[in-house]
Amino acid sequence: MDMEKVNSMDFGEFVDVFGNVVERCPLIAAAIWSQRPFSDLEDLEKHFFAFIDALPQSGQEGILRCHPDLAGRELQRGTLTAESQREQSGAGLTSLSADERLRLAELNAQYRARFGFPFVLAARLSDRAAVPRELARRLHCPPAQELRTALAEVKKIGHLRLADLLGVDPAGPQRPREPGAPDARRDARGPQPGAVRPGLEAVASLERRPHTRVKEGEN
Amino acid sequence: MDMEKVNSMDFGEFVDVFGNVVERCPLIAAAIWSQRPFSDLEDLEKHFFAFIDALPQSGQEGILRCHPDLAGRELQRGTLTAESQREQSGAGLTSLSADERLRLAELNAQYRARFGFPFVLAARLSDRAAVPRELARRLHCPPAQELRTALAEVKKIGHLRLADLLGVDPAGPQRPREPGAPDARRDARGPQPGAVRPGLEAVASLERRPHTRVKEGEN
Repeated sequence: MDMEKVNSMDFGEFVDVFGNVVERCPLIAAAIWSQRPFSDLEDLEKHFFAFIDALPQSGQEGILRCHPDLAGRELQRGTLTAESQREQSGAGLTSLSADERLRLAELNAQYRARFGFPFVLAARLSDRAAVPRELARRLHCPPAQELRTALAEVKKIGHLRLADLLGVDPAGPQRPREPGAPDARRDARGPQPGAVRPGLEAVASLERRPHTRVKEGEN
Repeated sequence: MDMEKVNSMDFGEFVDVFGNVVERCPLIAAAIWSQRPFSDLEDLEKHFFAFIDALPQSGQEGILRCHPDLAGRELQRGTLTAESQREQSGAGLTSLSADERLRLAELNAQYRARFGFPFVLAARLSDRAAVPRELARRLHCPPAQELRTALAEVKKIGHLRLADLLGVDPAGPQRPREPGAPDARRDARGPQPGAVRPGLEAVASLERRPHTRVKEGEN
């Protein structure tokens, strides 16, 4: 999908397409439609991220609370969003043993009790062995640092979802994916042994990139 | 449901119950969970409304863009939220003639083109004759005024949905509804000839009530 198409969308189409770039927060896509035209994926995601950064802390925690647990109740019940189902499945979280599921459920519960939001991680950049390890590590981080870490994960997830929707390589540069080039959607079905995960480097850089803040006057 | 129950909810339950008080914006319920305990309906809705008021203009427009058209495509397709379906049905919008539907579709399209968000109206306080009349009137309002009017409607809708969830009379005082007293849910099924709509007076006062703004330090 090219940017000309994106910029020509009315708000209904835009929210239909980009409403779940941030999990269960169509409000954010609906808000940034005001700020079109967008020049490329980086420009578009800059507006998503600036909106997140400009929210009060309760709003940022609210975004996290719209995310499901990894390998949690919603995965068991089949009520995940399509994107989340694909991502959790790609990380191998749909084929855990009973013991692995129990261990994750315990860690998720401890995390939620400690921080007041669920453990959020870009599952496509992780796998079934790394998820509980990372959860156990982050469980002991100071709350303010953990909020920042979790929001950085929301941005990694959003970057990968946007790259999918626009059909561009998430590692950049911002161009349509070449035939035969790595496909983040295919990657999401399961990691190949020794495969380099597309987009990892670009996504890691998100944490270092400064974001402009939404100002009232910009609207 | 009493406030003790509300205040004892973890964020997952809270978002399940209150996530659609503002149409398709669970982020807002998820955010204000941080601000519990709440003393009553008025206190709870004060936090919802303060969150809306504190958003930048693009975010407020984003909330409106998460609302469906009245008697629009989503009603035809059966993809409305349960609350919206009940409200539109109660206002008689599910039984329009082909001519009435066409007239509303044209007005909705003009409104969306002019303001960049859909026409939002508390359908439970209106009916099939008043909706197109009010739409035609608001179509000619200045955009800044229309944004304020539309957000006031979002608050009226939220007030009635909260009153339903808490089982209180939307006209207040804040107490469980007496057996045999007017039931907003029953009212939503269709207006009775000559019946006084419960909550109309309390809801009309929302526009006059000042709301505190969310401050970063409150979280």
